[in-house]
Amino acid sequence: MNKSQISVDDFDVLANRELSWAGDNGIRLLEIESGRAIMELPYQRRSIRPGGSISGPHMMMLADACMFAVVLSRLGDAQLAVTTSFNINFLRKPRECNLRAEGRLIKLGKRLAVMEVAICDESEIVAHATGTYSLPAASSPSKRTD
Amino acid sequence: MNKSQISVDDFDVLANRELSWAGDNGIRLLEIESGRAIMELPYQRRSIRPGGSISGPHMMMLADACMFAVVLSRLGDAQLAVTTSFNINFLRKPRECNLRAEGRLIKLGKRLAVMEVAICDESEIVAHATGTYSLPAASSPSKRTD
Amino acid sequence: MNKSQISVDDFDVLANRELSWAGDNGIRLLEIESGRAIMELPYQRRSIRPGGSISGPHMMMLADACMFAVVLSRLGDAQLAVTTSFNINFLRKPRECNLRAEGRLIKLGKRLAVMEVAICDESEIVAHATGTYSLPAASSPSKRTD
Amino acid sequence: MNKSQISVDDFDVLANRELSWAGDNGIRLLEIESGRAIMELPYQRRSIRPGGSISGPHMMMLADACMFAVVLSRLGDAQLAVTTSFNINFLRKPRECNLRAEGRLIKLGKRLAVMEVAICDESEIVAHATGTYSLPAASSPSKRTD
Repeated sequence: MNKSQISVDDFDVLANRELSWAGDNGIRLLEIESGRAIMELPYQRRSIRPGGSISGPHMMMLADACMFAVVLSRLGDAQLAVTTSFNINFLRKPRECNLRAEGRLIKLGKRLAVMEVAICDESEIVAHATGTYSLPAASSPSKRTD
Repeated sequence: MNKSQISVDDFDVLANRELSWAGDNGIRLLEIESGRAIMELPYQRRSIRPGGSISGPHMMMLADACMFAVVLSRLGDAQLAVTTSFNINFLRKPRECNLRAEGRLIKLGKRLAVMEVAICDESEIVAHATGTYSLPAASSPSKRTD
Repeated sequence: MNKSQISVDDFDVLANRELSWAGDNGIRLLEIESGRAIMELPYQRRSIRPGGSISGPHMMMLADACMFAVVLSRLGDAQLAVTTSFNINFLRKPRECNLRAEGRLIKLGKRLAVMEVAICDESEIVAHATGTYSLPAASSPSKRTD
Repeated sequence: MNKSQISVDDFDVLANRELSWAGDNGIRLLEIESGRAIMELPYQRRSIRPGGSISGPHMMMLADACMFAVVLSRLGDAQLAVTTSFNINFLRKPRECNLRAEGRLIKLGKRLAVMEVAICDESEIVAHATGTYSLPAASSPSKRTD
């Protein structure tokens, strides 16, 4: 019942194709189940601002990729889903370490999915995002429970 | 009176240091005046989704960099300004071409700056973002007109 | 070409029926043209916080009603349009006076309309909102120019 | 440890003074503990759109009042806290019944508090909001754990 419609391995294949920017920045899926996903952004040169903090846009990338994984956990290989709105609050400067995003489905409707993502460094939350994805008309409604 | 506190060339130097991800993705400042900035994101492999559309996170990067330029147009070299919130609506799939962002200052206060950015492809608006930047306590208040 | 699909008088009739809360709070449409609307929230007891400032939720009401008027300026009597997302930044404490909202259409698509609203007191901007309205499937596409 | 810095009764007194619009619309606090609050918006004429649905702005009022209660649960009688940004996604048309908001603190910093609120009808979530409150400089930092 909590099983994802897509595995971590299948997501990796699809992300290489669909979200090449995510792979370019080292973003990878760690865990996925129905309506939830955990992703990681490694601490590396490309994503860092002077002073050692990971840049805001890299946290946005991480949150957006995590929302995409959450959508796929329910709809399977729905690669036509696209972000329609995205909102993020940056809460504190992250420590110099890998960041972890935990995404959660708030609602899956016929046309829109709404998700939230908490981004944490090794000890606390550093950013919180909400977003909506527009769903392709054909995306297997039988897989949804609402 | 409409002169920017930072030139395009000085912004480029600072962006290389502060926003290396922007340069990595080819984002560059085209024009700047007090409270306004125009930036460009080139159409290139790294930022494209299958089907030819520029990815959402690359448009977020472009919008965030443009807001940073708008802040600097009023405060000069205020490299400690950081994004505190960011909201974007994606309006339509961009055409396969360079994107242009036009940023505008909505309000500059003592602690926060609020900006909006319209992103256009060669013929129409494709995304609209608003964001707030937190300002360093020391950022020369004498330069502000509010 | 800039003519609204609904007059100020017809909007008032519809607002009495659809947005009775707006009338209860004295909100009224001052001007409307295609893709633009100007509304006013009077300074009165019900909407005031201690200290004399108009409350945040009353500014949200004003902005939402103004977005609705902007939608109707293009679609006519589309009373099934409903807000799907709304984002507002409060910029400074308003003076003790009537507030005026100026709404502008950012994009009108088949399923969504995106608007922005600037709220001003007698001398400057005090809040800025963006929002999306979901449009009824049947809403006369012939009236749209995009 | 989970005890609120303000009781339901004390909140009611303060809300009558500070948020008279909330009382005017029947909004009331049901439960409060440290970092969490539950509020109710009754189903009544003033807040209803034709067709029987509770209006968007009334859900915004409910969410904003709930965020204020969450702030007070940690800071006590901090009546100078004001909303600086607010974002809401409307997820489905509510049933014709009372609505319940559950607010949760995401982060309490020195200058800003960030909260999220889920609004539910009798069977499911109908809206989800996030917001930031600006905190008065003097607001007893000793009461905060971050």
